[in-house]
Amino acid sequence: MKAVVYKGPFDVAVENVADPGIEDPKDVIVRITTANICGSDLHPYEGRAPLDAGMVLGHENMGVVAETGPAVDRISVGDRVSVPFNIACGTCRNCVAGWTCACLRANPSGRPTAGYGYPQMGPYWGGQAEYLRVPWADFNLLKLPAGDEHENDFTMLSDIFPTGYHGAELAGVTPGKTVAIFGAGPVGLMAAHSAALRGAAQIFVVDKEPDRLALAEKYGATAINFADTDPVEAITGATDGAGVDCGVEAVGYQAHDPAGQEHPEMVLDKLVEVVRATGRIGVVGVYNPEDPGAATKGAKEGRYGFNYGLVFDKAITMGHGQCPVKRYNHDLRDLIIRGKAHPSLIVSHELPLDQAADAYARFDRRDDGWTKVLLHPAG
Amino acid sequence: MKAVVYKGPFDVAVENVADPGIEDPKDVIVRITTANICGSDLHPYEGRAPLDAGMVLGHENMGVVAETGPAVDRISVGDRVSVPFNIACGTCRNCVAGWTCACLRANPSGRPTAGYGYPQMGPYWGGQAEYLRVPWADFNLLKLPAGDEHENDFTMLSDIFPTGYHGAELAGVTPGKTVAIFGAGPVGLMAAHSAALRGAAQIFVVDKEPDRLALAEKYGATAINFADTDPVEAITGATDGAGVDCGVEAVGYQAHDPAGQEHPEMVLDKLVEVVRATGRIGVVGVYNPEDPGAATKGAKEGRYGFNYGLVFDKAITMGHGQCPVKRYNHDLRDLIIRGKAHPSLIVSHELPLDQAADAYARFDRRDDGWTKVLLHPAG
Amino acid sequence: MKAVVYKGPFDVAVENVADPGIEDPKDVIVRITTANICGSDLHPYEGRAPLDAGMVLGHENMGVVAETGPAVDRISVGDRVSVPFNIACGTCRNCVAGWTCACLRANPSGRPTAGYGYPQMGPYWGGQAEYLRVPWADFNLLKLPAGDEHENDFTMLSDIFPTGYHGAELAGVTPGKTVAIFGAGPVGLMAAHSAALRGAAQIFVVDKEPDRLALAEKYGATAINFADTDPVEAITGATDGAGVDCGVEAVGYQAHDPAGQEHPEMVLDKLVEVVRATGRIGVVGVYNPEDPGAATKGAKEGRYGFNYGLVFDKAITMGHGQCPVKRYNHDLRDLIIRGKAHPSLIVSHELPLDQAADAYARFDRRDDGWTKVLLHPAG
Amino acid sequence: MKAVVYKGPFDVAVENVADPGIEDPKDVIVRITTANICGSDLHPYEGRAPLDAGMVLGHENMGVVAETGPAVDRISVGDRVSVPFNIACGTCRNCVAGWTCACLRANPSGRPTAGYGYPQMGPYWGGQAEYLRVPWADFNLLKLPAGDEHENDFTMLSDIFPTGYHGAELAGVTPGKTVAIFGAGPVGLMAAHSAALRGAAQIFVVDKEPDRLALAEKYGATAINFADTDPVEAITGATDGAGVDCGVEAVGYQAHDPAGQEHPEMVLDKLVEVVRATGRIGVVGVYNPEDPGAATKGAKEGRYGFNYGLVFDKAITMGHGQCPVKRYNHDLRDLIIRGKAHPSLIVSHELPLDQAADAYARFDRRDDGWTKVLLHPAG
Repeated sequence: MKAVVYKGPFDVAVENVADPGIEDPKDVIVRITTANICGSDLHPYEGRAPLDAGMVLGHENMGVVAETGPAVDRISVGDRVSVPFNIACGTCRNCVAGWTCACLRANPSGRPTAGYGYPQMGPYWGGQAEYLRVPWADFNLLKLPAGDEHENDFTMLSDIFPTGYHGAELAGVTPGKTVAIFGAGPVGLMAAHSAALRGAAQIFVVDKEPDRLALAEKYGATAINFADTDPVEAITGATDGAGVDCGVEAVGYQAHDPAGQEHPEMVLDKLVEVVRATGRIGVVGVYNPEDPGAATKGAKEGRYGFNYGLVFDKAITMGHGQCPVKRYNHDLRDLIIRGKAHPSLIVSHELPLDQAADAYARFDRRDDGWTKVLLHPAG
Repeated sequence: MKAVVYKGPFDVAVENVADPGIEDPKDVIVRITTANICGSDLHPYEGRAPLDAGMVLGHENMGVVAETGPAVDRISVGDRVSVPFNIACGTCRNCVAGWTCACLRANPSGRPTAGYGYPQMGPYWGGQAEYLRVPWADFNLLKLPAGDEHENDFTMLSDIFPTGYHGAELAGVTPGKTVAIFGAGPVGLMAAHSAALRGAAQIFVVDKEPDRLALAEKYGATAINFADTDPVEAITGATDGAGVDCGVEAVGYQAHDPAGQEHPEMVLDKLVEVVRATGRIGVVGVYNPEDPGAATKGAKEGRYGFNYGLVFDKAITMGHGQCPVKRYNHDLRDLIIRGKAHPSLIVSHELPLDQAADAYARFDRRDDGWTKVLLHPAG
Repeated sequence: MKAVVYKGPFDVAVENVADPGIEDPKDVIVRITTANICGSDLHPYEGRAPLDAGMVLGHENMGVVAETGPAVDRISVGDRVSVPFNIACGTCRNCVAGWTCACLRANPSGRPTAGYGYPQMGPYWGGQAEYLRVPWADFNLLKLPAGDEHENDFTMLSDIFPTGYHGAELAGVTPGKTVAIFGAGPVGLMAAHSAALRGAAQIFVVDKEPDRLALAEKYGATAINFADTDPVEAITGATDGAGVDCGVEAVGYQAHDPAGQEHPEMVLDKLVEVVRATGRIGVVGVYNPEDPGAATKGAKEGRYGFNYGLVFDKAITMGHGQCPVKRYNHDLRDLIIRGKAHPSLIVSHELPLDQAADAYARFDRRDDGWTKVLLHPAG
Repeated sequence: MKAVVYKGPFDVAVENVADPGIEDPKDVIVRITTANICGSDLHPYEGRAPLDAGMVLGHENMGVVAETGPAVDRISVGDRVSVPFNIACGTCRNCVAGWTCACLRANPSGRPTAGYGYPQMGPYWGGQAEYLRVPWADFNLLKLPAGDEHENDFTMLSDIFPTGYHGAELAGVTPGKTVAIFGAGPVGLMAAHSAALRGAAQIFVVDKEPDRLALAEKYGATAINFADTDPVEAITGATDGAGVDCGVEAVGYQAHDPAGQEHPEMVLDKLVEVVRATGRIGVVGVYNPEDPGAATKGAKEGRYGFNYGLVFDKAITMGHGQCPVKRYNHDLRDLIIRGKAHPSLIVSHELPLDQAADAYARFDRRDDGWTKVLLHPAG
């Protein structure tokens, strides 16, 4: 089959590789109809997260079931499915508790998390390809209505829509609450959409890219461009000095100021200021335990010197980490089906698989308007 | 001052009564700008709940603070306020736990609940009048933005908007869930609006009055007229046979079939059928421990023989009772201010105080189109 | 193998039947070390719940894994395991949400619940036998420490310890709360033990059997014998007139008064009286949608005319149904291992399999001291 | 009256000061029977938190009501009461939501928190004195049974017992969970006691003082002396390599290694290592937004460079801050009354008021065995 193969930093290629097959009786093979490029794919692309050459990339996948292992009894050939980016065994303590992002058994390395085509997530090939092998398929796959309706909405169910929603959940967004979201990339935009779906009264989205902020406004948020406005002043002012109830971190430690400098603590510092005492912050932007290429000595070792004293002083609760997609994707799917959720607004490009290399390069350069790229292997 | 005074069954009159004054240092006097007639005002009006002649009616009140007692320190003269229908001391165990509908101290009778102008809720006069005395005012009153904007929305904050919302809360409505609401009176409509604000994927509203069902559709619900459609079949069919996650009872034991017969168990029986196993039901329609005028021997003594065996079999959770308004009114107010909530869609009539007697009579007859009546004492 | 076989009402026999085998690649065969007789086994025994002759009885099972299907990857031959009485597929919507008592796929009849050796729970043989087939074994089985330590404690993990705990959970028992438990059978006693483990300040247990009440006191509860004491007066008096925060129903509709008469509403009526306004009631005693042999016309059709009006008036929340064992058994196992939980205090008899028929007869007669019977198939 | 007056760093004196009087109609005057010295009193004592000379110290207070203001209606003269250390208005948004530690109105400085006799907590005198003025007394005071029973247990209700309990709550301790508590000072010991009351299966307490660790064992915990044992190894080993579900930080940034060096990040770093992926950490040890005397440049500005990258990687949730005492003290009081809770085990000294200066000096030197000092103003 054809697949997007990682060759090395800044080098991916669409190549012919062996078709995946059933390796375990609980496996399923999915014929991919849509696989997205994710902002986090750029970490290995840029060489900041080490990945073996030859790995097939792609963890945002959906398609139609082509083959099922003999122990599969819930999923059938022909089912249209969304594939959560987390690979979860479904029977370990964390999976049973709903923490599929921390499966204790799926990653042979022993690391409590697994996924497709990604550094440190196990040996599993990604889905930027014609076919994908899905382990523990009865547990992992979400069934979708047959056909091709809502394809570009449903494809957001594998990662970023639930991930944005998880940010809103960790931040405690409920009807009537005020929310500040830092970052208007795909995850931040999905957090804004999720906050609206959860009934937030006021949603602020902070970024420096006008095209992304325009999308935030489409989702009903108030856009704040921190290149020209102090977000703390703006948000505090718009909330009668109170600050917001909920904050979502959708940037991570690779945050850049308008001049292009990387400041690992910048976003957390601002969030801690704008969230009111007793509020909550959901951190879905990535903070790593180590990154030799990070901007500061502390950040290289996972040590981020943000104003944690103020977190304590304000009695703020902070939730963190990857999204357990399965916790949310069923309900979000139903919101799409009923016309209440529209995550596909952020799609900027739909491309065939063989344009993937160019798409990676342009997405990595943050070319204007390249918000979200979908690959359709069948064209 | 002028006030709507209860004279006896089917007899209310607008009369001159003594102005209320500060009786306790924590009291406030509110000049009423809007007082609604509530469906539950019809219980004493019809003589089914005993009320002393001379009582001033009205528990859905808002206005502007005219006078404050010497111990009041949060509320000031001139503040525009919403008055929750529950009177709560703010310091007993239930109030502190957020159960202001079950205040242990406000009702001199010892009954754990108190309110304005209502049978068995204490000696407190209602607000269908020019002025209202509000006890424990710092705790009870909700501040509103000055002026007269959103008056008809804000006036729903004293009872039915939070009460409908409480139904949705007890029923566990969260984003993506399916909901069946029985009753399209004001509370049922507010439950439908609340379910939408909470992100429900599908909302069914069941009633037999076309005008009310039309309002339900304005709030995004699917209307089901049980005069011509079997609601259990309709809802089960529309949910792939699964039934709904959440049910809201917004009718009570005085439920009537299309022929006008009263059937105390009718609504609960239907709800238990349409809610799926492991679902939740929020009961905000009234069930009384006794009512000599009830339709069945059991109901006269508070014993309703609905299919409780099925509740157990389906592992359903049921929440009940009056709404603790203060738990919700702050957030709902903010949703009104930010343009996300529109409870005033249900208002059918705005009248001066001296048309109250006629309004009661017509509302009690369920005259066509008399959905919700607001009284403006100042005209 | 030898097994306890249902022959008809009041007739069980230990017979040789075919050994169970792997039928699905996800199955496991467990060699039973302990299988308990449960109070609910008496429903089919007495002929009140129809069961096909030939069924092997027993849903409270533990043992050692003897054989695993080819798709099993978490459980190994030799593992000592507890078998939850619910059979759950692990991948349907209810299982994923933790409602293993309402599995949508395990029962071929379509009824959303399945189990071993029990009426209406599917074709699965029970474990009062030498061997038991366990479907979806990776999901269903709980691993125990190897050896035979704590055998009589661990055997309570398959049903009654979690079921009692579920009652306390549905009733909202948390540290400092007051609790009234009706019923001092095994489930009621486990609810009392669970309430203590959850930090309740005061626990009342109501029954009429002195031997069972003595066990309740061993778990730190205050025993109330309703044969000679009015439980409502006793509990109200002991709580300064306030009533209790939490109530647990561990009797069901087959409740008997001291004279031996069956009163389907008796226990719920008392609970609604003793639980304070805003409290919660967990109902784990069984209420059926139909039982032709029930004591009243209503109860025959699942209609129980308890004082539901008072439930509404007091704003009580009621949770119901079978226990999703898997939600609790991991944590309860750890409390046993660490010496904090001692469910085996209630064991009255340990017998070899071939004394099962006599044990059923005596347990059914409620012979004095026959609280809880364990069968050890290997002797 | 006599009172413990702050004169300056390392200088307190028992002096005659003016008796407090009713200043607001909602005030109460309490005759103090017991006032504890708290570890946090040492912050101003050591001059690390600036306090005006002349302030009366003491925020852990209980006594008997001597006088009530004219608007007080729940509390009466003669009531024995516990005084939560937080001063809360009872009617602002945070108080109503149960966050009495973040009252928006009680502190004239506008800082959202207030208390007695403490830096930056408002002008309120403390209770290490014969009398104490309590504002908003109906809301703030907890009634206790008359008499002098349980005095040394009840006196822990004003701060450290609820504070330790809050740590366990923020850490998500429920029955069967494993817990690591860093710090065996009074708060850490109360966290251990609370974790046991909440049903934890295993509790580890880490400190370097053998006398405090001996107390931890009295509360059922496993003591780990980090002066001679690596706590991460010990805890990981004792949990089959899994780590604990819950962590409690009861030390703060003024953590000392066995050699006496201060390491602001030491405790958080260890906690993040021993808490398992998806676990929770409750931080009740203090982290300040600024402290010019802190041990590192970062800590001086509230920036603590602990391994936050690992927090994200492990999807840990962190709760922080002062305890809202009122949320817990009612239930904890009942556990004391019913003989389930025994916080007074930690009391090392009971002294008359005039020995306060010496007690401060010895407590500050951490003299051997000076775990918890109670002052009884009446002797």
